[in-house]
Amino acid sequence: MSTDARPNIRAPRGTEISCKGWVQEAALRMLMNNLDNEVAEAPEKLVVYGGTGKAARSWPDYHRIVASLRDLGDDETLLVQSGRPVGIFRSHADAPRVLLANSLLVPKWATWEEHHRLEAMGLTMFGQMTAGSWIYIGTQGILQGTYETFAACGRTHFGGDLSGKFVLTGGLGGMGGAQPLAATMAGGAILCVEVDPDRIQRRLDHRYLMKATRDLDEALAWIEAATAKGEALSVGLEGNCAEVLPELVRRGVTPDVVTDQTSAHDPLVGYVPDGLDLAEAAALRESDPEGYIQRSKAAMAKHVAAMRAMQKAGAVAFDYGNNIRAFAVEAGVEDAFEIKGFIPEYIRPLFCEGKGPFRWAALSGDPEDIYATDRAILELFPDNEHLRKWITMAGEQVAWQGLPARICWLGYGERVKAGLRFNEMVKSGELKAPVVIGRDHLDCGSVASPNRETEAMKDGSDAIADWPILNAMINTACGASWVSVHHGGGVGMGYSIHAGMVVVADGSEAAQRRLERVLTSDPGMGVVRHVDAGYEEANRFVQGTDVKIPGVT
Amino acid sequence: MSTDARPNIRAPRGTEISCKGWVQEAALRMLMNNLDNEVAEAPEKLVVYGGTGKAARSWPDYHRIVASLRDLGDDETLLVQSGRPVGIFRSHADAPRVLLANSLLVPKWATWEEHHRLEAMGLTMFGQMTAGSWIYIGTQGILQGTYETFAACGRTHFGGDLSGKFVLTGGLGGMGGAQPLAATMAGGAILCVEVDPDRIQRRLDHRYLMKATRDLDEALAWIEAATAKGEALSVGLEGNCAEVLPELVRRGVTPDVVTDQTSAHDPLVGYVPDGLDLAEAAALRESDPEGYIQRSKAAMAKHVAAMRAMQKAGAVAFDYGNNIRAFAVEAGVEDAFEIKGFIPEYIRPLFCEGKGPFRWAALSGDPEDIYATDRAILELFPDNEHLRKWITMAGEQVAWQGLPARICWLGYGERVKAGLRFNEMVKSGELKAPVVIGRDHLDCGSVASPNRETEAMKDGSDAIADWPILNAMINTACGASWVSVHHGGGVGMGYSIHAGMVVVADGSEAAQRRLERVLTSDPGMGVVRHVDAGYEEANRFVQGTDVKIPGVT
Ligand SMILES: NC(=O)c1ccc[n+]([C@@H]2O[C@H](COP(=O)([O-])OP(=O)(O)OC[C@H]3O[C@@H](n4cnc5c(N)ncnc54)[C@H](O)[C@@H]3O)[C@@H](O)[C@H]2O)c1
Ligand SMILES: NC(=O)c1ccc[n+]([C@@H]2O[C@H](COP(=O)([O-])OP(=O)(O)OC[C@H]3O[C@@H](n4cnc5c(N)ncnc54)[C@H](O)[C@@H]3O)[C@@H](O)[C@H]2O)c1
Repeated sequence: MSTDARPNIRAPRGTEISCKGWVQEAALRMLMNNLDNEVAEAPEKLVVYGGTGKAARSWPDYHRIVASLRDLGDDETLLVQSGRPVGIFRSHADAPRVLLANSLLVPKWATWEEHHRLEAMGLTMFGQMTAGSWIYIGTQGILQGTYETFAACGRTHFGGDLSGKFVLTGGLGGMGGAQPLAATMAGGAILCVEVDPDRIQRRLDHRYLMKATRDLDEALAWIEAATAKGEALSVGLEGNCAEVLPELVRRGVTPDVVTDQTSAHDPLVGYVPDGLDLAEAAALRESDPEGYIQRSKAAMAKHVAAMRAMQKAGAVAFDYGNNIRAFAVEAGVEDAFEIKGFIPEYIRPLFCEGKGPFRWAALSGDPEDIYATDRAILELFPDNEHLRKWITMAGEQVAWQGLPARICWLGYGERVKAGLRFNEMVKSGELKAPVVIGRDHLDCGSVASPNRETEAMKDGSDAIADWPILNAMINTACGASWVSVHHGGGVGMGYSIHAGMVVVADGSEAAQRRLERVLTSDPGMGVVRHVDAGYEEANRFVQGTDVKIPGVT
Repeated sequence: MSTDARPNIRAPRGTEISCKGWVQEAALRMLMNNLDNEVAEAPEKLVVYGGTGKAARSWPDYHRIVASLRDLGDDETLLVQSGRPVGIFRSHADAPRVLLANSLLVPKWATWEEHHRLEAMGLTMFGQMTAGSWIYIGTQGILQGTYETFAACGRTHFGGDLSGKFVLTGGLGGMGGAQPLAATMAGGAILCVEVDPDRIQRRLDHRYLMKATRDLDEALAWIEAATAKGEALSVGLEGNCAEVLPELVRRGVTPDVVTDQTSAHDPLVGYVPDGLDLAEAAALRESDPEGYIQRSKAAMAKHVAAMRAMQKAGAVAFDYGNNIRAFAVEAGVEDAFEIKGFIPEYIRPLFCEGKGPFRWAALSGDPEDIYATDRAILELFPDNEHLRKWITMAGEQVAWQGLPARICWLGYGERVKAGLRFNEMVKSGELKAPVVIGRDHLDCGSVASPNRETEAMKDGSDAIADWPILNAMINTACGASWVSVHHGGGVGMGYSIHAGMVVVADGSEAAQRRLERVLTSDPGMGVVRHVDAGYEEANRFVQGTDVKIPGVT
């Protein structure tokens, strides 16, 4: 297969299988689905998402994985080492069919340089989080995560959702572009400052953004009207955050919430300094990269100083994982870290209850199967308003990419309920084919990442990486369908270790037992990890469950 | 329990168990056995061996692990995070009863400094290799590994054992003191240069060393007589390697084999420079540490230059993992690395066939059980002269420490044979109680350690750490009794990732199935890893086996 043309890989649909069992078939379809043109960013290079996150190391490796899965017995396990199938051993029916390890390096050598050197030698690949573990489902995950954050922000600070609240942010790029839709789903009126008009137009076209303007007064008037009436609204404002935010401070305008998702992680090929239009920025980047970086950092300092001023004036301010605080500190904003990260602020309380990015895909390929599971979720958790809102809106607004799929955040106890219900639905024929159930590696008990998911742990255990390894081993022990351990996802080489799992609901009794075990222990690890770290929320939560913790429960 | 007094922990013996099953009981006994006064270096601090390698994080953690194991059901799995029991989840009969992760850190933080900081906060412990995974069996392992190296050296260079050969080495310390016994077991006449007379006396007392002298002429005469008659002999020579070896070069004396196990890894508190007696060395260490280090490195340069001269004169020279080459290069011996490491030279060819440190312990506590397994091993592999020699001599010369145990190196195919035979012997009553079967983490498919076990891999994959993780996951999938993943064993924080496994032969049919799977896939990973790295030996070996490698077999 040429590596230039789009390969047009598409997972088989329906109930006919080419493997010896549904679990192997599920792995095959999900591998293929990760590389579907609708799903992958650069399928011709086997790149699924997130920079160079790949599903297989090379095309020959891809084909060998496919052939191995087709031949794999119900009592065999395939081992995949950074995208290459390296061995098949006899295990048993209740063991995973595939075990994957991606991009792991002995710590002293765990840098991008060494990774790239070894990658060029054909010895490894970057697996990101769900690329190398065959459970990426497209951009729905980002939308859901952003919605979850805004919703938690509303609950935490306003005792409900964001209705009647003014949310101010920057950036409408690949990830940041989910903000307007997520914020309106959470009830808010959001103003998104974006320097690139094309990005604004794109989000208008996809109906993630409702309105746009280049006029700050007009934008503020719209927002004011919406908050007054408690209406959800999203407004794109063409402008530069390093100019617009200080101007708002001068005017005394204080939003209820301020955050940012401009590409501040990269001061050269990301953030655009104030005083330059896009063409001028591009020219300066070429002619004087050092000078560009200086101006970028100075601009970030203005940007963050304004966020701090708003925070002091009463706004809720949080960092959204783009490293803008660190650059602002470099450029003189000493108190930038008074703005807290979104994980400790909003996500960790969810992690304490084992909540995280539960997701599933319909192997039938039929969207009706997902709508049926959507209804099942609403029936299972009738009192969860937040969940109802998300499922309803996702059903209306999320476009399918590859195999129909859904994501929603569920906690300990909830995940197993949902998984068992789905398995019944497969058994009874309510669903046309089996369903795969997985999650992001960014979950409550499966990741060690001191600059993001485990930033500022209460007991200081940010860098302890025993947890994702225990998570992978217990999921393997409990009979997940495939289990993976990765290095470097999200934040890059050296900065994270994380584990993934997928378990198949094929309607069988055996699957029911496996689902029960895996969907209990996997989120259970999140509860355990946060109890161990001393979180009161986790401690309170665990008392009402059957989680066994020596010396605690 | 006080942390000062020796705790007097001793594993229960016999067939009465305090746990709900033999697998849990085995874990309990082996944890206790690791901390037996006969086995552990500092049981009062929970330290088993290797610096600060511990079996549990703290005494309360130890007691909680014991209580958890006693209560653990046959369908439950206990998770241990760096020596602390953190959770118990429902799994199934064929899953491990215990999963352990020790000392793992996110790579960017993977240093001794961060480890010590977190350890002081009570958040982690150092697990070394077999300390934190409850399968240390005392010093027999070192003797066996050294014997294995000398024997492989004999096979490689002399087409047989070391009979009639003159082996020259330095150092009779904790590890190096195994050299005289191991070399005589391999048939050779060994001269061990050691600067400290107490160390020589100790090895004479323990009968690891046959004779000693301070007179070089006398020592050489003894060695000459022995080699002439092809007799095994070990001679301790009080002296400094940096003086004795250059003197031998001056005299034109060339040994058949030259290596070294002085404590060259530490140029201050280890190696003793020439021209100083022990008291003078101690004084200089105090008064002028910098000066000491300079003299140490200069001495190592003389030492290594003499080894190189012998090598050029026809001696077989190899480095024995004490880092002396690196210091010699610093001090000007540019070609020090022409002396190759012992792993690539002698151990890797064994790894290619799945060979490694197979070990077992008798839970009955009765030495007769080990003698019975010794006989069984000799019956199973009647044509293996090398193995016969080891088993026979070990039976005569190895003193028991804690539960009676044995180690011998077995390969792919052999381990499963031995394991199944032991299980039959438990079933039939030939053995009085179950046997635990495990191994060191320093094995063919379970370690990534670029400065030792994976030094100079053929394809350059030294730093790739996917392998130990895959090893841990496949052993978990196959139903090992307990499985562990550690960081930093052997070479320290940042330098290694490795996995361990133990599987119990309790005579049951279920154990038989588990033994068959685990003892196939575990050494199988070693074969697979070396085939993947392009070793011809592995490739040839795998063709005669049932190991499945996509695209290869
Ligand atoms: N929250 C999370 O979990 C998470 C995860 C990963 C990454 N991030 C970070 O979020 C940021 C956004 O990610 P993305 O994928 O959307 O990036 P992107 O590069 O696709 O989009 C960034 C957008 O910011 C705009 N921009 C740059 N400078 C600006 C300025 N001064 N004023 C206004 N707009 C400006 C750009 O025009 C672009 O549209 C990145 O820094 C990323 O690292 C967050
Ligand atoms: N082969 C392996 O697998 C392996 C594994 C771990 C460590 N090592 C290395 O092997 C070395 C020995 O380990 P050990 O536990 O025996 O150390 P040790 O400190 O117990 O013993 C070292 C001995 O060398 C002697 N010595 C020091 N300088 C000398 C000199 N100039 N001439 C003669 N004798 C001298 C000391 O008196 C001491 O008895 C260490 O460097 C260790 O790191 C090897």
